[in-house]
Amino acid sequence: MHALGRHLLLELKVCNSKVLNDLKKVQEIMVSAAKEAKATIVEISFHKFSPFGISGVVVIAESHISIHTWPEYGYAAIDIFTCGDVLKPETAANYLVDKFQSKNPSVMEVKRGMLSREGRLPHKPLKNFTPEDDRAKELQMVS
Amino acid sequence: MHALGRHLLLELKVCNSKVLNDLKKVQEIMVSAAKEAKATIVEISFHKFSPFGISGVVVIAESHISIHTWPEYGYAAIDIFTCGDVLKPETAANYLVDKFQSKNPSVMEVKRGMLSREGRLPHKPLKNFTPEDDRAKELQMVS
Repeated sequence: MHALGRHLLLELKVCNSKVLNDLKKVQEIMVSAAKEAKATIVEISFHKFSPFGISGVVVIAESHISIHTWPEYGYAAIDIFTCGDVLKPETAANYLVDKFQSKNPSVMEVKRGMLSREGRLPHKPLKNFTPEDDRAKELQMVS
Repeated sequence: MHALGRHLLLELKVCNSKVLNDLKKVQEIMVSAAKEAKATIVEISFHKFSPFGISGVVVIAESHISIHTWPEYGYAAIDIFTCGDVLKPETAANYLVDKFQSKNPSVMEVKRGMLSREGRLPHKPLKNFTPEDDRAKELQMVS
C-alpha cells in the first residue's frame, strides 16, 4: 500500500512566547518553512487574536502547513501536510522547532490516503500547476 | 491533563468524484460544515488544481477545517481542528461524510495541546474576537 500524503503533527511546548505572539514573525517563519520544504505556495493567511494568539495557514500545492499558537502557555500546534516525493516535511519540522525555540517538541506522523492499489500513486505534477484551469473533462476520472 | 484542542483526521474513501472536483460545491460544503459545528469563520481559501483536485481551508477562531481531494481516486483528506467547548467537530465530520457521499469513511481523533496543568484550560472567548487587535501587553504572558 502507498500513501498519497504525509502528515506531521507537531506539538511544540515551552516555546518563545514572544515569538508565538508576533504576527509578522510567525508568518515569516511559516512561509520560510514552506520554502525550506521546497513547497509551491498557493496562498498565505495569518490572523492575530485578542488578547493573544495567532492562527495561520500556508496553502501549498495539494497540501498545507498550519499553525495555532497559545503564547500564554508557550505552546503551538503545527500541521505539515505534504504530498509527493519532492517536498521534505521533516526539513520544515526541524526548521520550525528551531525558530519557535521549542524546548519540548514532539512529532507524530500520519500517512494520509493509504489506498489499496499496486505500485506508486502518481502525484499530480507541479510543473503543470495552474490553480485556475479546469482540464478535468479532457482526462478520464475514476467514478 | 486537559487538551487545548481536538483534531479529527478524516480519511474519506469511495466518495462522489464529481463532487470532489467541483470547486464551488466543495467550498460550500466545507463552509456549511464549519457553520454546522458552530464555528466562527475567519477566512476561506479554496483552489482547484490541474488536471483535477481541490485544496481548501476554512480558518476558524483558533482552529481550521481543511480538505485536499483526489477525485481520480475518489478520496479526500479532511482535518477538523477545533478548540473550546462550543464547537462540535463530530457534527462537522458527519456532515462532511454525508455530503461527499463517502462509502468508506474513517476518523481518527488526536488531542492537541495536552498540557500538564490542573483544571481546565480556558479557551479565549469568541465574544472578544478581534483579529487585528493587539492587547497582549495589557496581560501577563507565560514567558
